[in-house]
Amino acid sequence: MSIQLIGTRASFCPLARDLSTLCQVPQDAPLMTGSGEVGVIGLGVMGRALGLNLADHGCRVVGFDQNAKRLATATGGDSPIAAAAEIEQLMAALEAPRVVLLLVPAGAPVDQVLDLLGPNLAAGDVVVDAGNSHYRDTQRRAQTLRAQGTTFLGVGVSGGEAGARHGPCIMAGGARSGWHQVEPLLGAVAARVGGRRCAALLGPDGAGHFTKMVHNGIEYADMQLISEIHHLLRHTAGLDDRAIAALLSSWNEGELQSYLLEISVDILRMLDAHTGQPMLDVIVDVAGHKGTGRWAAAEAIELGVPAPNLLAAVGARAVSAHPSARMALAKRDQRPSPFPEQAPARLHTDLESALLVGRLASFAQGFELLRAGDARHAWGLPLSEIAAIWQGGCIIRAKVLETIAAACAEGLDERGLLGHPAFAQQLADHLPALRRTVALAAAAGAPAPCLASSLAWVDGMHTAASSTTLLQAQRDYFGGHGIERVDREGRFHLDGSEA
Amino acid sequence: MSIQLIGTRASFCPLARDLSTLCQVPQDAPLMTGSGEVGVIGLGVMGRALGLNLADHGCRVVGFDQNAKRLATATGGDSPIAAAAEIEQLMAALEAPRVVLLLVPAGAPVDQVLDLLGPNLAAGDVVVDAGNSHYRDTQRRAQTLRAQGTTFLGVGVSGGEAGARHGPCIMAGGARSGWHQVEPLLGAVAARVGGRRCAALLGPDGAGHFTKMVHNGIEYADMQLISEIHHLLRHTAGLDDRAIAALLSSWNEGELQSYLLEISVDILRMLDAHTGQPMLDVIVDVAGHKGTGRWAAAEAIELGVPAPNLLAAVGARAVSAHPSARMALAKRDQRPSPFPEQAPARLHTDLESALLVGRLASFAQGFELLRAGDARHAWGLPLSEIAAIWQGGCIIRAKVLETIAAACAEGLDERGLLGHPAFAQQLADHLPALRRTVALAAAAGAPAPCLASSLAWVDGMHTAASSTTLLQAQRDYFGGHGIERVDREGRFHLDGSEA
Repeated sequence: MSIQLIGTRASFCPLARDLSTLCQVPQDAPLMTGSGEVGVIGLGVMGRALGLNLADHGCRVVGFDQNAKRLATATGGDSPIAAAAEIEQLMAALEAPRVVLLLVPAGAPVDQVLDLLGPNLAAGDVVVDAGNSHYRDTQRRAQTLRAQGTTFLGVGVSGGEAGARHGPCIMAGGARSGWHQVEPLLGAVAARVGGRRCAALLGPDGAGHFTKMVHNGIEYADMQLISEIHHLLRHTAGLDDRAIAALLSSWNEGELQSYLLEISVDILRMLDAHTGQPMLDVIVDVAGHKGTGRWAAAEAIELGVPAPNLLAAVGARAVSAHPSARMALAKRDQRPSPFPEQAPARLHTDLESALLVGRLASFAQGFELLRAGDARHAWGLPLSEIAAIWQGGCIIRAKVLETIAAACAEGLDERGLLGHPAFAQQLADHLPALRRTVALAAAAGAPAPCLASSLAWVDGMHTAASSTTLLQAQRDYFGGHGIERVDREGRFHLDGSEA
Repeated sequence: MSIQLIGTRASFCPLARDLSTLCQVPQDAPLMTGSGEVGVIGLGVMGRALGLNLADHGCRVVGFDQNAKRLATATGGDSPIAAAAEIEQLMAALEAPRVVLLLVPAGAPVDQVLDLLGPNLAAGDVVVDAGNSHYRDTQRRAQTLRAQGTTFLGVGVSGGEAGARHGPCIMAGGARSGWHQVEPLLGAVAARVGGRRCAALLGPDGAGHFTKMVHNGIEYADMQLISEIHHLLRHTAGLDDRAIAALLSSWNEGELQSYLLEISVDILRMLDAHTGQPMLDVIVDVAGHKGTGRWAAAEAIELGVPAPNLLAAVGARAVSAHPSARMALAKRDQRPSPFPEQAPARLHTDLESALLVGRLASFAQGFELLRAGDARHAWGLPLSEIAAIWQGGCIIRAKVLETIAAACAEGLDERGLLGHPAFAQQLADHLPALRRTVALAAAAGAPAPCLASSLAWVDGMHTAASSTTLLQAQRDYFGGHGIERVDREGRFHLDGSEA
């Protein structure tokens, strides 16, 4: 089983490798039968890749993009995507009932396209927003379009360009009737794991984009954790990137197996084409973002979910975004000396374990965010199914999701994943190494916000008698907000009076 | 100079103490002259206290509350606050141009009161929202009312009940003409530091409530830091609360001098009136909140400001809010043994220093949030003046604000407070102790999210070559988002092609 990169930016990855583990689509995946056809509006990286993927599976694809250059690039030459010069033309080229995928930037552009689409829609058409829209926008749009007789699905698509091209993870939300219409198309192009399609309807309006938002929050945290581990290995332990790649590659054979670790190994082995230097040495260390990770953090705050890893990852990206301040401050700074003498073997296994606990913490927090969103909106999110479809196609696919899917299938109590024996055991086994890692990073002056927040979260969630009592007493002292007592119901002031 | 608690909940603080340091209003503060008069709508804890404070200063106060019980409590007996049965009656009782203070819960209640007020307003009247409104709501309301010819000020009032009663910190935003009308009233009742009134117009619409929101974000972080230090002292080092009170009281004589530390000492010395137990032992360790700290965290995320302490404090409150999960998990948990042998003297000075660095970090992050809001809204926030008025009346008043005010007066560059020599020196002197503290907390299993995030932020801001390069490479690898290069302008993919 192997797959060739066809029709994508051929030089996407300068290192030859077998893409099968990235894409997880067997070549013998069944093609769609019948006259599947779809319109794709927005032919950027994701729209074009998804369009080509649909075409590979026997679907007739008509594409439109407001940007003439993007339209020409996606539909020119021997591209199987047919070009439409206008949205009207695209709609006229499809047989009713029509399926239209939007892959345009989140926010106003989606509303603009929907405004243009509106007059061209007929009863039975299904509009699928496959971009990274905020789930509240999706709820609003679905409601508006429903009133106009159109079915609107909000669908999170993960896997980046390669995933969209060869098998993404597809998280849908909206009316079941609409999903039935598009499932033959989207199910066919999705990733597969053990014969199972990584595509599912997860709930009503907004449930798909909410799940994708949480996915991206976990993604932010996992990327940050890997970067922190890299920093410790390179700048503190003094390994070069090839040595780190070898180490990470060995980790990727075990419990840490994941897409993000795999591509990190690839990246660490890359040499810059222009200078011949290690790839990372030519990259500016400022993190960009497209907003979804920040939305996840903001949603955790809004819902009161303890998801400190997601917050710490957002905070770390913000720190990175001040490079000239950092450089000016670093000049004057006296860093502590690197790790006190430490046997490399022990250090390496400690970092491996620390990364595993950090990842488990990020996922557990993400699943708490899913549960809180589910409780707020009464969606009935199928957590076990989410953990199952996240095992293929998407950016955060990882071996730990096997344990998580099993735990969710058994049902989670108030303790969440921390309450599941297998998950808790795995975490407990590796926790001492995270303790040592956080301590070493602190001593060495290596910033490790997400590792540290993982540990603080685990310890916080295992603390029966916390010092929040003092904080609550302060709040009553200065603000008269009242406290609850351990020995009776009600709210009281510090002096014993009722609040 | 001493002040008696009169007319407030007399048992507010069960321990007798001199309130002068709390209130910082000398008894010889000049009373307002002339016929100052004001309407107060909303007579809860803060409205009533502020009304009594105004009355103390010779102001005629007419009060209204929709809740008849609250109205009766605040205006009955020998209260100097006159009762109005309806808003119309309140407005009729005041001479034009009128000043009306709103002290109602943030959100819809403010809009409801404004709707009721509307028909009763005349040209020249000034409406002051002195509650904890979101600054965006304040901007919207000011614009709406301006179109109707009314001046609307959004005013953050800090100091809790005691502050409002005896001298709060007052942070105003809105039209200068409106401020001139209310300044004689609000300036008179505000706290004073060295003869200076802790009340100022900080900028146009929204600037006051934005500043108050940041104040509360710093407050969340400082409270969390003190709680973490308490946890280390009590649950790990094994001190009881009276011993901790003695220690904190000695710290409060030095660089850590602050209102929050002072009241913590009071609290730690309290015995519960019902059981005779140490006060904290009867309090449920679940943190409540009124939203402003969460708004500050969400705003930091929105503006891309690195304020990880504010985020960590919000995350820690969320962890606390799951007590039954924590208790269930703690039962099964094998905590590490407490600190390895550690000389108590060294441990205590380390924790003192760790708290100081944590506090400096929280303030520095808060000031970055102020600067980012200022830049976004072009308010012209007077940072030095904010640091000055925060030294009196408000909850976060602290000795470190002297250094901060001086630094702001000299002007901050891109490095923020970290770039100021005095601030940086203070931080550098105590940083090694924070390193040891974070390491010890990690080893001991004591959750210290805000201490850890302080350290990660300091280290992150002093890192010239971070591993964010790897994170950015990942983003381009899977998402084609592009990277920036250290050696040329533009955006590129990993293969060297232009993005």
